[in-house]
Amino acid sequence: MNTFTNRIPTNRIPDATVRRFSLYLRYLEDFGRSGISNVASGVLADRGGTTAAQVRKDLSHLGSVGKRGLGYSVPALTRVLRTVLGLDSTWRVALLGAGRIGTALFEYEPFRRRGFNIVTVIDNDPCKVGSRLGDVRIRDEKGLQCVLQEDGIDLVIVAVPARVAQSLVDRVVAAGVKAVLNYAPVQLRVPDDVALRNVSMLVELESLSHALTRSRQ
Amino acid sequence: MNTFTNRIPTNRIPDATVRRFSLYLRYLEDFGRSGISNVASGVLADRGGTTAAQVRKDLSHLGSVGKRGLGYSVPALTRVLRTVLGLDSTWRVALLGAGRIGTALFEYEPFRRRGFNIVTVIDNDPCKVGSRLGDVRIRDEKGLQCVLQEDGIDLVIVAVPARVAQSLVDRVVAAGVKAVLNYAPVQLRVPDDVALRNVSMLVELESLSHALTRSRQ
Repeated sequence: MNTFTNRIPTNRIPDATVRRFSLYLRYLEDFGRSGISNVASGVLADRGGTTAAQVRKDLSHLGSVGKRGLGYSVPALTRVLRTVLGLDSTWRVALLGAGRIGTALFEYEPFRRRGFNIVTVIDNDPCKVGSRLGDVRIRDEKGLQCVLQEDGIDLVIVAVPARVAQSLVDRVVAAGVKAVLNYAPVQLRVPDDVALRNVSMLVELESLSHALTRSRQ
Repeated sequence: MNTFTNRIPTNRIPDATVRRFSLYLRYLEDFGRSGISNVASGVLADRGGTTAAQVRKDLSHLGSVGKRGLGYSVPALTRVLRTVLGLDSTWRVALLGAGRIGTALFEYEPFRRRGFNIVTVIDNDPCKVGSRLGDVRIRDEKGLQCVLQEDGIDLVIVAVPARVAQSLVDRVVAAGVKAVLNYAPVQLRVPDDVALRNVSMLVELESLSHALTRSRQ
């Protein structure tokens, strides 16, 4: 059985590997719920649409590996991946924008289950300010920097129109927030010490229309 | 100036490249609106957070390249990327699931602007069936296969709970649909001739919590 050191690696893990860690963790949790205690790299690969070699390479970032051929311990690997992905902590999240996308994200239950707690919601629509999204009162953007600091926000989700996104994010950065998840359809600029992920809802759809176009030629 | 052949390549373009094509197209459309007629690979790279070499490699999939050093023609490259991404056509899309995520996707204006028309909405909630989402009447899942065929659906967006997603997708595949965009938090299985993209709303968030955890060590 492969084992893992308790020490979490401090070397940089490639983004694509970290993304696959999220998927592996989801599969491992499924296996755990089904009472499966060991899993081979090939099984993880099959679930994730990748190769066993890729799984082994990804997991080699997590430290020492034990006996070959017996697979990975499901509980041990689950634990290590949770730690590496920062899921031992809970995170205080602010949502900027309480429109359709923002509201859907707010109510997306898996976020909370993973420890991402949206404790602050900001919107500049005077009709929304003061009303509630779940148990959170929607606040005006005026005091944004103070609010983010007072609420101890770790991570901001941007779900505002493209034209206002950069100026808001500049204020988020000035407030000292170090992680931004951007759903606005615009490329944002942040300093190097701020982690930024852009989610484009069009990219996946366009990769499908590309596939359809190819298959019909 | 670099030029492109009119012939669209039939060789397989890597998924990561196709995803970057979506981003390049967005930037090119911005440049076009600003009246910029030529753009260097370095400028595209800068906007997209990648390298000029990567941009040139990606665009080399699009055929012959003209004079070096003068950059790409914004209108010509826009046109070719639109064609390669299948955006010269309009696509008939069915949305499975009219919950929070489904509704947000339905109302996401850029989908329509790109030619992805959600013409069919299916939900199994009897309180929703018969009511309208925009100008589309929500239909029951019972006649799913017939509905997809009658409506001439090209592409299906799955926004239903994880436990019902696979059985629904099996019926989507049986109806002959060749492209599936999956928002359900489960890995779906489809035959090789069906294009599938999974969108996990957790993957990006977990890659940020990973970055935060690393930076705090």
